[in-house]
Amino acid sequence: MPNYTAPVEDMMFLFDKLRNNKNYNEIEKYKEVNSELVKDILVEAAKINENLILPLAKSGDENPTILENGVVRTPPGYKEAYKKYTDDGWTSLSCDPKYGGQGMPKTVSGFFDEMLSSASLSFKLYSELSIGAYNCIKHHATDELKNKYLPKIVEGKWSGTMCLTEPVCGTDLGLLKTKALEQSDATYKISGQKIFITSGDHDLTENIIHLVIARASDSPAGTKGISLFLVPKFKVNEDGSIGQRNGISTGSIESKMGIKGSATCVLNFDEAIGYMIGPKNKGLSSMFTMMNLERIVVGIQGLGISEIAYQNSLSYAKERKQGKTNYSKSENGADYIIEHADIRKSLLNMKSIIEGERALCFWLSQQTEVSLNHPNNEIRQEASDLVSLMTPVVKSMFTDMGMEITSDAMQIHGGYGYTKDQGIEQLYRDNRITPIYEGTNSVQAADLVFRKLSNKNGNIINKYLDLVKAECNIDIDGIKPFVDDLNKYLETLKIFTSWIEIGMKDKKDDVSAACNDYLKILGLVATAHAWIKVLEVSFQDYENNKDFYEDKIQTAHFYFKRVLPRIDSHFKAATTGSDYIMNFKFN
Amino acid sequence: MPNYTAPVEDMMFLFDKLRNNKNYNEIEKYKEVNSELVKDILVEAAKINENLILPLAKSGDENPTILENGVVRTPPGYKEAYKKYTDDGWTSLSCDPKYGGQGMPKTVSGFFDEMLSSASLSFKLYSELSIGAYNCIKHHATDELKNKYLPKIVEGKWSGTMCLTEPVCGTDLGLLKTKALEQSDATYKISGQKIFITSGDHDLTENIIHLVIARASDSPAGTKGISLFLVPKFKVNEDGSIGQRNGISTGSIESKMGIKGSATCVLNFDEAIGYMIGPKNKGLSSMFTMMNLERIVVGIQGLGISEIAYQNSLSYAKERKQGKTNYSKSENGADYIIEHADIRKSLLNMKSIIEGERALCFWLSQQTEVSLNHPNNEIRQEASDLVSLMTPVVKSMFTDMGMEITSDAMQIHGGYGYTKDQGIEQLYRDNRITPIYEGTNSVQAADLVFRKLSNKNGNIINKYLDLVKAECNIDIDGIKPFVDDLNKYLETLKIFTSWIEIGMKDKKDDVSAACNDYLKILGLVATAHAWIKVLEVSFQDYENNKDFYEDKIQTAHFYFKRVLPRIDSHFKAATTGSDYIMNFKFN
Repeated sequence: MPNYTAPVEDMMFLFDKLRNNKNYNEIEKYKEVNSELVKDILVEAAKINENLILPLAKSGDENPTILENGVVRTPPGYKEAYKKYTDDGWTSLSCDPKYGGQGMPKTVSGFFDEMLSSASLSFKLYSELSIGAYNCIKHHATDELKNKYLPKIVEGKWSGTMCLTEPVCGTDLGLLKTKALEQSDATYKISGQKIFITSGDHDLTENIIHLVIARASDSPAGTKGISLFLVPKFKVNEDGSIGQRNGISTGSIESKMGIKGSATCVLNFDEAIGYMIGPKNKGLSSMFTMMNLERIVVGIQGLGISEIAYQNSLSYAKERKQGKTNYSKSENGADYIIEHADIRKSLLNMKSIIEGERALCFWLSQQTEVSLNHPNNEIRQEASDLVSLMTPVVKSMFTDMGMEITSDAMQIHGGYGYTKDQGIEQLYRDNRITPIYEGTNSVQAADLVFRKLSNKNGNIINKYLDLVKAECNIDIDGIKPFVDDLNKYLETLKIFTSWIEIGMKDKKDDVSAACNDYLKILGLVATAHAWIKVLEVSFQDYENNKDFYEDKIQTAHFYFKRVLPRIDSHFKAATTGSDYIMNFKFN
Repeated sequence: MPNYTAPVEDMMFLFDKLRNNKNYNEIEKYKEVNSELVKDILVEAAKINENLILPLAKSGDENPTILENGVVRTPPGYKEAYKKYTDDGWTSLSCDPKYGGQGMPKTVSGFFDEMLSSASLSFKLYSELSIGAYNCIKHHATDELKNKYLPKIVEGKWSGTMCLTEPVCGTDLGLLKTKALEQSDATYKISGQKIFITSGDHDLTENIIHLVIARASDSPAGTKGISLFLVPKFKVNEDGSIGQRNGISTGSIESKMGIKGSATCVLNFDEAIGYMIGPKNKGLSSMFTMMNLERIVVGIQGLGISEIAYQNSLSYAKERKQGKTNYSKSENGADYIIEHADIRKSLLNMKSIIEGERALCFWLSQQTEVSLNHPNNEIRQEASDLVSLMTPVVKSMFTDMGMEITSDAMQIHGGYGYTKDQGIEQLYRDNRITPIYEGTNSVQAADLVFRKLSNKNGNIINKYLDLVKAECNIDIDGIKPFVDDLNKYLETLKIFTSWIEIGMKDKKDDVSAACNDYLKILGLVATAHAWIKVLEVSFQDYENNKDFYEDKIQTAHFYFKRVLPRIDSHFKAATTGSDYIMNFKFN
């Protein structure tokens, strides 16, 4: 089983030194969320993740969730752990105190999401979608529904799901067939089949609240006729107590490559009673409230799994002797593999990506809170645009990098990485879902390029690039070489962006064929920007914590020398057009 | 279950049109191996792989090989299939007629290796190491041992293994602890533990012939005291019949991420009787005879798995509708995903890599045969040097690309790619061993850079680059843009090679930290070279098979525009030195 120590020091560094978004710091309700409080939370979070949840990863992989006589049973240990997890209030961390939550900002809950992803992604998924459902209900449902459902979800007694996908529609929700028939009491009868429903059924909570998209019988075809419904597994009585079973059955659960502790369900809705949430025919837009926040969390999953893969690679490299280094001082026998240049390179690659991503994510958490909670409309909108821009980037880049990092971890472990004992191959299998679900990474890339670069508020990407440029204008000698590198790639990104803008006019397939490369370049630049902000503090505050900051500076150095240059190839390949791709005749 | 159609047309194209190595064509014994004969073989090979062996992949994954009361049992169907497979003579394809083989060159058996890898890697491994053992015994053992063991191995009644790895030594064989104690009759008693032994025990053959490296009691420490022994599972009587069980037991079998139908064994040798093969203390060099040929076959495994992943991605993309394309003509509903630019790009990426690799492999097969069988010493040596140079490249590049391609196949399949039903995730898991075994890809990169670029015969890499340059000097207009691209990257590779040569003097860690990138660049260039040779025929012979050649030209176009530019980033990152990597203080 892999070991895990939550990176509390690095998280507290970000919270203490990089919580410098002026707008974020103006949000009244977070002024009390100070360093001491957060440190206490993270220390407790570390404990539960390291001790209670980490062992569930192996248990869930070896004893996958099963469907038995129509009942979904989670792996051994899940129930007990979930009880402790909810008793300790971890499901309520980021929720509104009005409904029993602790009201922590994403600058804090994001760290918890990372730790939980490191410990056990399968276990995490049982509460993760609850938060999605919570957000969606909170933003779009009536007060009656909110009061009835939210406190139980916040408490973790009930969980939530997002029911979008159907057999013929995943990416393309306009094709959906699930029907909603309005009743005389303004409820709806929902009928249809949903597939790939994460935590669609299980034995951890008393009730499961499904958020289902469906088409009302008088709604038009396509995406413009989709509405959103709250459909509980058990109906809820007036007094809030659990009532009769609703018309939902679990058809099957998927047998998957990884996240085997998570129940991925086929759900059959057969005249299940549901309640419309938000305006009729605007269901997709309501659903995307939760979907977008959820996509960032999926990125964080990739980060969390990367972190535990790195930690175990590092410790293995310190224990395993194999081969002599170029300038070995060993007189008999091999050197530790951490002394080999190629292994060091691989470890630094992991570390520089992980720490850069964590800093980028922290930056994004501040922006997200501003977008949700700043009193000024315009400031909220500006932040919201940046969050929209970065959401597909974080989702895709962090999950793709998660594959690279877990794969490199396997290589460092050699044959032991491929066998089950060390648990490294499980990290690789578990993470492999993250580039697929919540919209494949190619869907993210198309979303970025076709919908996020500019919107009704203007040219978002150029505003972002100007912001990066401005924030990198730092008068510290040590930072200059880093900024020079970044500025060069900012220039590349600007040229690429113009190329995209031109393509949008009459060469849209050029843009489609380039969008994955564009996303990767933007991700690499955004991470470099996050590193520059880390470096600024590291140089300014150097004398106060020399070892820590020297580590940061050297890690950043690796990122700028060995990771950032990936941009060159992406740019060159992507801008060769698409005629030869579109005209190709596949046999 | 994935479908598979053996790419016989592409293989026959290579055999008919690119079998143009003058030295290869001078090998007397292969002059009878003509197009008709090979076509017949490939058609039969396609049948057995498509119909009999392909279904074993799923069976082996769902019912892994088990160890039961000391006996290893292969998955359901393996025994029956193995019988048919040996009855039809497929184990003997490349073996010497003197021992009952069919004497086919690697230009033919390589195609069979690819098909078998596509159909079921787990099943393949039971006979693959037999060929390795066959080669090793044939080159190094006494006539007595050869006559006693080879015919049974060729026939497939007995199988073979390579027993190298021990708990503390994988990459670093000098650390091995297995002992060999000489007996008065010149046999040895072998004692020790070997791990990760592929096909180390199973129920498919009457006997298993282990080739074991061990240290004779009077041999020195380190790699210079290692000898090679033939150690049969059952002793063999004078008349060739099976005798008593030898002192070998199976301690356990590994539970692995993939290739679950293959038995990966811990073998305990307890005074097992063995026979020394080749000179005492020269065991590693004898073992490397088989190891090097085996490494090329591992590369071919990656190619074979890539091919089946591509075929299934292509057919899925033609069946699955999702989303509208940029210039959709569909009036209601979605377009087939094969019409989307990004999916087309992904498919062409796979195809252009696969077909380039297959052509490179065919080129290498001819060189290998020249190195083994040409009557002229000098020509043999020159070919051998090129084979040595390309062996780590083919092993690493093809297996890494296999991961990229099986991963892209999962992305194309979306959620269905991650579930067990379609079998795509199994390809990904099965292929994941290939960058690890037979020396990790990093070990290959170090081998390439530190041992293969130059040797006692001089500067091999420059000879190779000159050969590529000379062969690309083709006076055909259509080829010019391709050659121009390649020449630019040949120049990059030359500069990188000089940089490596300089580093070898006093910056060896720079070289170590750059070797993976160097291997990748050389692989990309070698594949481009193979493509140029394909293009030469395609342009010259265009009128005779327009559709086929147009497909080749357009596929090559993709490779040169979108794949080859990966070189830029590798070169830039790799040549930044290693001081900042070596001086880093890992916590």
